[in-house]
Amino acid sequence: MPGTPPARYAYLGPEGTFTEAALRTVPAAARANLQPYASVLAALDAVRHGEADAAMVPLENSVEGSVNATLDELATGEPLIVLREVLLPVSFALLARPGTELEKVRRVATHPHAEAQCRRWLTTHLPDAEFIPAPSTGAAAALAAEPGGEVDAAVAAPIAGDRYRLAVLAADIGDNPDAITRFVLVGRPTAPPVATGADKTSLVAFIADDHPGALLEVLTEFAVRGINLTRIESRPTGERFGHYCFSIDCEGHVDDARVGEALMGLRRVCADVRFLGSYARADGNKPRVRPGVSDVEFRDATAWLARIRDGRA
Amino acid sequence: MPGTPPARYAYLGPEGTFTEAALRTVPAAARANLQPYASVLAALDAVRHGEADAAMVPLENSVEGSVNATLDELATGEPLIVLREVLLPVSFALLARPGTELEKVRRVATHPHAEAQCRRWLTTHLPDAEFIPAPSTGAAAALAAEPGGEVDAAVAAPIAGDRYRLAVLAADIGDNPDAITRFVLVGRPTAPPVATGADKTSLVAFIADDHPGALLEVLTEFAVRGINLTRIESRPTGERFGHYCFSIDCEGHVDDARVGEALMGLRRVCADVRFLGSYARADGNKPRVRPGVSDVEFRDATAWLARIRDGRA
Amino acid sequence: MPGTPPARYAYLGPEGTFTEAALRTVPAAARANLQPYASVLAALDAVRHGEADAAMVPLENSVEGSVNATLDELATGEPLIVLREVLLPVSFALLARPGTELEKVRRVATHPHAEAQCRRWLTTHLPDAEFIPAPSTGAAAALAAEPGGEVDAAVAAPIAGDRYRLAVLAADIGDNPDAITRFVLVGRPTAPPVATGADKTSLVAFIADDHPGALLEVLTEFAVRGINLTRIESRPTGERFGHYCFSIDCEGHVDDARVGEALMGLRRVCADVRFLGSYARADGNKPRVRPGVSDVEFRDATAWLARIRDGRA
Amino acid sequence: MPGTPPARYAYLGPEGTFTEAALRTVPAAARANLQPYASVLAALDAVRHGEADAAMVPLENSVEGSVNATLDELATGEPLIVLREVLLPVSFALLARPGTELEKVRRVATHPHAEAQCRRWLTTHLPDAEFIPAPSTGAAAALAAEPGGEVDAAVAAPIAGDRYRLAVLAADIGDNPDAITRFVLVGRPTAPPVATGADKTSLVAFIADDHPGALLEVLTEFAVRGINLTRIESRPTGERFGHYCFSIDCEGHVDDARVGEALMGLRRVCADVRFLGSYARADGNKPRVRPGVSDVEFRDATAWLARIRDGRA
Repeated sequence: MPGTPPARYAYLGPEGTFTEAALRTVPAAARANLQPYASVLAALDAVRHGEADAAMVPLENSVEGSVNATLDELATGEPLIVLREVLLPVSFALLARPGTELEKVRRVATHPHAEAQCRRWLTTHLPDAEFIPAPSTGAAAALAAEPGGEVDAAVAAPIAGDRYRLAVLAADIGDNPDAITRFVLVGRPTAPPVATGADKTSLVAFIADDHPGALLEVLTEFAVRGINLTRIESRPTGERFGHYCFSIDCEGHVDDARVGEALMGLRRVCADVRFLGSYARADGNKPRVRPGVSDVEFRDATAWLARIRDGRA
Repeated sequence: MPGTPPARYAYLGPEGTFTEAALRTVPAAARANLQPYASVLAALDAVRHGEADAAMVPLENSVEGSVNATLDELATGEPLIVLREVLLPVSFALLARPGTELEKVRRVATHPHAEAQCRRWLTTHLPDAEFIPAPSTGAAAALAAEPGGEVDAAVAAPIAGDRYRLAVLAADIGDNPDAITRFVLVGRPTAPPVATGADKTSLVAFIADDHPGALLEVLTEFAVRGINLTRIESRPTGERFGHYCFSIDCEGHVDDARVGEALMGLRRVCADVRFLGSYARADGNKPRVRPGVSDVEFRDATAWLARIRDGRA
Repeated sequence: MPGTPPARYAYLGPEGTFTEAALRTVPAAARANLQPYASVLAALDAVRHGEADAAMVPLENSVEGSVNATLDELATGEPLIVLREVLLPVSFALLARPGTELEKVRRVATHPHAEAQCRRWLTTHLPDAEFIPAPSTGAAAALAAEPGGEVDAAVAAPIAGDRYRLAVLAADIGDNPDAITRFVLVGRPTAPPVATGADKTSLVAFIADDHPGALLEVLTEFAVRGINLTRIESRPTGERFGHYCFSIDCEGHVDDARVGEALMGLRRVCADVRFLGSYARADGNKPRVRPGVSDVEFRDATAWLARIRDGRA
Repeated sequence: MPGTPPARYAYLGPEGTFTEAALRTVPAAARANLQPYASVLAALDAVRHGEADAAMVPLENSVEGSVNATLDELATGEPLIVLREVLLPVSFALLARPGTELEKVRRVATHPHAEAQCRRWLTTHLPDAEFIPAPSTGAAAALAAEPGGEVDAAVAAPIAGDRYRLAVLAADIGDNPDAITRFVLVGRPTAPPVATGADKTSLVAFIADDHPGALLEVLTEFAVRGINLTRIESRPTGERFGHYCFSIDCEGHVDDARVGEALMGLRRVCADVRFLGSYARADGNKPRVRPGVSDVEFRDATAWLARIRDGRA
């Protein structure tokens, strides 16, 4: 968020979820007003309507909420752009009211996806416990926090322990210790953050028709300029079954000459292109820029073209 | 399922979900033993372990269960192949015990994704109702069927009404009347069903490294042989962050010469290729086969090559 | 030739050849000083050294002089650019001193290439005549014009008849009545003639190394921008055997946005690019410009990129 | 030439030219009947009509005869294939009757192309000599050999000295000491010589139409299979101005799986493909075969395809 930090952040709620944890990694969030919303769409609309300055939503998150929902909701409606990405290790904890003993846990609340990702641990350590589905891990923690409630414990993000004053009965109970989820901070259109040399650009390319090679044309616009893709998904546009768009993340920043030229190429060959932002990569990986596509080489080529057009070459 | 129909079908349960409805569109299911499983993985493993002959699971389903889960679970573990695809319109119904009046409905159970997809209708017609999350629409219907239970109604697939003897308070309450979901019937490896002329082939291509143009190489193997893709998604392989595979559906059948040659090309340039089956398209759309890639032209070219290698040309 | 026409034109001599005929199709040549030179290189060097303002030389000419010589000599040395192309039907005539009868012709002079191209006619009509090789058709006509010389007739361009006061014993005696040759008028670097909408651009692309796909990279720079090639030849650079350049003519003008961007792309991926000019096509054929690569679409895309970079999109 | 060597070789004459020198590098020529022909076409037709078993003709020869003539004549008419290539350094000698002194040389015969390539030496050492054009360097040597003839010396291949009993007044007088010419030995269609691992394949690809990217399609058939091109030239087909074919040499042998598959691809996408032979490279350079396109990998992929088609994968 360049310049003044936003005073108000929306996020996919409720409180105590991984999304709130992702938001709290943003330095400016420490002194901001954080507001949970009931859905990705609601959080995004809060930004669109000016109720919030930015929203943290999951983009590739296997725990709660769907990648697809976020992708589709950024692809339509009033334009928004990604300002920052956050990668968060998925660390599940079994949380309960202080004093609860693991052996006494009979009913465990959590989101169905979280239950699926901790199944091995739960089957081993709580083979007889009943699973109570909750709409989010945060909601599960809230249920577990109710004194005398019907739930003994919750599988949730560690942040939910702080939020609901729950004790950690067991930490890191996910079946895949390396799982990482990806969140994005989204705002209204603005000049992207300054390029860092390790950036990503997100966009949606809408295909005019569906001939063999339509996707190849799109990818060639990147490849001819040496730009690597880090994610691609074909998505039906919903308008008519069989019509597609491509949701794409690529290496580089819109201010890089090669990325700018590729975007212009897409703009020309696609039915539409929606720019979803350029932002620093959370993993800090710099791209390998092959010979011929650096900004210096673009500038040299531009000067050369001017010379031959003027007859000075 | 060529030949004898399988006696035992697994599916993503519980009973009364869209997945069961999809399975019941398969003619052979009428006289088969249908068994719900608690997760996509459990249903697939039932096939892998020989407990079931085939399993119906969601592949592109926005209601319950995740595309990604199915894709990832087909991409790893013991090989399975897709035998059939089923497209099902997403038709939500508000179901309740017979005699329930719409105005009296206070607590509505459903899966969170189904709730999201009926929000407009629910907000309009049941603005004061409380949403009770359930792990599936079938489970929600089961809750609604309990006499004296805490739930008045459920948002679920119409099939759940039959299953749990519920009345339809309102039909077609989804916000998007054109929504379609996609399911696949999966079995152990076998010779694919005979080509129909309107087929799809599914596969996963694992990329050896992540250089710009790796994806382009993969797509060129299809494009040079005039094969259109109908779905592509990059997926992290999980082994190391940053390593990718591509989950791909393409037009055509592995027995088509152009598809066979493209698959061999992928096999050679990729770290690995997992074939996930060739099967009739549910929509019956025949591909436009461009000049130069028909089976007849492949046969002619093969004969010509033999002639020039022998000096007969 | 923008502005004042050059006062002095060089051309591949001697007088009375097809090259002089090509030069005389240039309107400005009517009032200019025309000077024949003994070789393509000599004519080009006359321009390089300021002795001439422009030179007419054969580029794709099957009669006299080699395509390759002209291509290679434009590719090296002080830069020159093509200002105009001329297409000339190859019309051979049998010329002799007035009063000569066809039946009496015993010795026929011509350039060996011209002899080859009229062999059918010569074999039929002058089966017993002896062929006297001459270094050009113009020189052959000069020999035929010598009274009492050893040559009875010459196969030459019709223009040689005027030049040497020879009678036409037979016209259009070439074996291929549709043969066309191509000449170019070459000058010192200057801003190219204004685009006409039916233009060609010539260049030489020097390849840094010789990996599979190097040529494909070069062609992709054109294809991704919808530019058709009208001629391509790989040529050894002479520096080391096995190193190549590509001599290319493409549709369009360096002032067309798509051509400019393609040239910049070549400049970046090639070891070197030599621009050889943009000029009106002699055949007046306009290119089919595919959607996405017109100047209007380039301008729109440029404006769009500026907006998204500024956060106004 | 597998098996019995041909008894009769045709070559582009006359005797004593570089082409004869190229033919004499073929071991089997030592005991064969060599016959000069007046043109490339005549030599090729001698093979077509069974008068000769094979013919040596120039393919990339800057001295006499045109690349283009040979290319065009192989591209049409009764099929022929290249059996062997020969690379010959271009070494010019100044030849004269024994006893002739360099200072006395006044009239020098040679082919115009040879004159052009020795101009620097001639200008320096024989500034006042007159150039007498001859239809070949061999014919020039024959003129120089005539006692009392009008020619004092000839610029020709060293072999012409032996042939016409001429003395070498000066050796290696060419301006470019590294110049190399390329010849091919051509025969009637037969199974190509066995692959050596360092082979070339020649062919002509006729394009159905002239859309942007037609050439790219052709090249993609090679590139997708990792095959490098060593020469490419667009050539008008002569049928209608503006219709093109591509004359191509690529690395590898028709019996290599990658080359065979590429040729089949061309056969399918082109209007026509003429195979002109696979033969050992004269320079012995082995191609760098990239991962994925070796014969072993093709065999593995073929076996894998059979397995998945049968359901054994």
